[in-house]
Amino acid sequence: MSRNTWTSLRSLLVSIAAAVLASAAFAADPLPSWNDTAPKQAIVQFVEKVTKEGSADLVPAPQRIATFDNDGTLWSEQPMYFQLFYVADRVKALAPKHPEWKTREPFASLLRGDMKGVAAAGEKGLAALLAATHAGMTTEEFERAVTKWITTAKHPKTGKLFTEMVYQPMLELLTYLRANGFKTFIVSGGGIEFMRPWAERVYGIPPEQVVGSSGGLKYELRGGKPVIVKLPELVLNDDKGGKPVGIQRHIGRRPIAAFGNSDGDLQMQQWTAAGGGSRLCLFVHHDDAQREWAYDRQSKIGKLDRGLDEAKAKGWPVVSMKTDWAKIYP
Amino acid sequence: MSRNTWTSLRSLLVSIAAAVLASAAFAADPLPSWNDTAPKQAIVQFVEKVTKEGSADLVPAPQRIATFDNDGTLWSEQPMYFQLFYVADRVKALAPKHPEWKTREPFASLLRGDMKGVAAAGEKGLAALLAATHAGMTTEEFERAVTKWITTAKHPKTGKLFTEMVYQPMLELLTYLRANGFKTFIVSGGGIEFMRPWAERVYGIPPEQVVGSSGGLKYELRGGKPVIVKLPELVLNDDKGGKPVGIQRHIGRRPIAAFGNSDGDLQMQQWTAAGGGSRLCLFVHHDDAQREWAYDRQSKIGKLDRGLDEAKAKGWPVVSMKTDWAKIYP
Repeated sequence: MSRNTWTSLRSLLVSIAAAVLASAAFAADPLPSWNDTAPKQAIVQFVEKVTKEGSADLVPAPQRIATFDNDGTLWSEQPMYFQLFYVADRVKALAPKHPEWKTREPFASLLRGDMKGVAAAGEKGLAALLAATHAGMTTEEFERAVTKWITTAKHPKTGKLFTEMVYQPMLELLTYLRANGFKTFIVSGGGIEFMRPWAERVYGIPPEQVVGSSGGLKYELRGGKPVIVKLPELVLNDDKGGKPVGIQRHIGRRPIAAFGNSDGDLQMQQWTAAGGGSRLCLFVHHDDAQREWAYDRQSKIGKLDRGLDEAKAKGWPVVSMKTDWAKIYP
Repeated sequence: MSRNTWTSLRSLLVSIAAAVLASAAFAADPLPSWNDTAPKQAIVQFVEKVTKEGSADLVPAPQRIATFDNDGTLWSEQPMYFQLFYVADRVKALAPKHPEWKTREPFASLLRGDMKGVAAAGEKGLAALLAATHAGMTTEEFERAVTKWITTAKHPKTGKLFTEMVYQPMLELLTYLRANGFKTFIVSGGGIEFMRPWAERVYGIPPEQVVGSSGGLKYELRGGKPVIVKLPELVLNDDKGGKPVGIQRHIGRRPIAAFGNSDGDLQMQQWTAAGGGSRLCLFVHHDDAQREWAYDRQSKIGKLDRGLDEAKAKGWPVVSMKTDWAKIYP
């Protein structure tokens, strides 16, 4: 057999195998951790509608943009945003080099484990903590620190790695959308550089599809070696009205599907819903105190109040974690 | 024949056709408008090296990021950046609504066609022109205006549409890289919102892979309808040291190949070259007064001076448009 014939035969066999696997995948339920309730039905109906050739609702693949909030939508966010655990651990790790923190707030409170004292320092205190832990280093140094932390630090309540507290139904949803030609993006109030080091491994979302709150950056040569330095200034607060702004700046086209869990995601949903044609806007509702947490209108973290009303008024699916999800974590 | 058998047979035939076409594409020269000189050889060697399975230089597909400057690298930039023709046309179109421009500089000079007078107003004058033509409207209004202009306005010297003044060899290079698993990005000093409306059609580069100078944006509800308004402030000057910053902010990983034509691209090349493993940094040198323009160290637009020296010192390919390109425009 000639080499060419071999090559053709091999690619033929690969194709047959791929076709068989594809039809098997088609037959299997792509969302096994979702109960067969209204939200799952809405998702599947939407995806079938916008991907069906010849349908009036068909959306060309390049326009199939889906955006996901991160905290509370793709992973848990209680008792506080996971990035704040990073801040706390980082302050402790850096403390020996900063003896002045022993008497300076909110560092002193944090080092004593007095979270009320930290909270009392308000937004200005938070900004100081973020500046100390997220700026004044190169992007590569920050990436290394985050990567080390995320692969070792454990959640105080569950004892799991934080990346083990991602929602299995949402992982399936990401995969399902991508299998249907969607490009999936994170659009989060969390730090863009904090999420990128692990979003590809955990969510299958590459760095260039992560949108988040962003700090200033500065290019410089250090001993002839180019570095990018993180500055203690906010360039984008990717929350509330900042989410459509982040979407426009980074993606440049309007999503046709958006997934959130709090009032901080409402403007993203409004912006998505206001485009022409079929749209899917969905909120995850944290109502499962047993398997996760239960909170909404009164919560300090991930408050869902106006969003709940607007979802009801506009007929957007609201996922009850308790009744609509067969499984929470992988 | 059962429906299943039909389906399998059809997908088999499609696969065979695809395999035949793929091998035909492989056999044909992917860069026919490039003469067989050093730059083309450097490009092909680089691509083969980073894509060869089992090679020590193999770069996994998701990391195959290639960045392209736009003005002077993908399309012409003389006698002035094409976006400035848009500014001039726009000022003329808006002038009836702004009688005060008749006596206010640099609007008055521009409306009289006195470009020296415009230049005399310096950066502050340019900022005023940009604010008047690029801000104070919604992103959708701006997109419509750019789309209308780009499909009708003609270059004063060539009489071509501006999008007909893109470089055929670079179009082939974009396609060749994408066929080899690269993700191609624009990283330009030009306005991000100015390029996005046509970059996908002309270059095959979708909006989310366009990085450029960016203005402030603001989300608001107008009569219940969400809009994003363009503000007269600069959020990113995506030139020189701003290019690695734009790359980090929008892409979040370092390119392995970068293509530019001026000193404004030098920092992008430095940042790209300083990563580990195989890298390709290339400058396009405008030395073809006959078919395009000839300019470098002394030019006010697209000055290539330090870049030429650094390319020589580091062995980066420099494309002579005159001798290395068989064709300039499509």
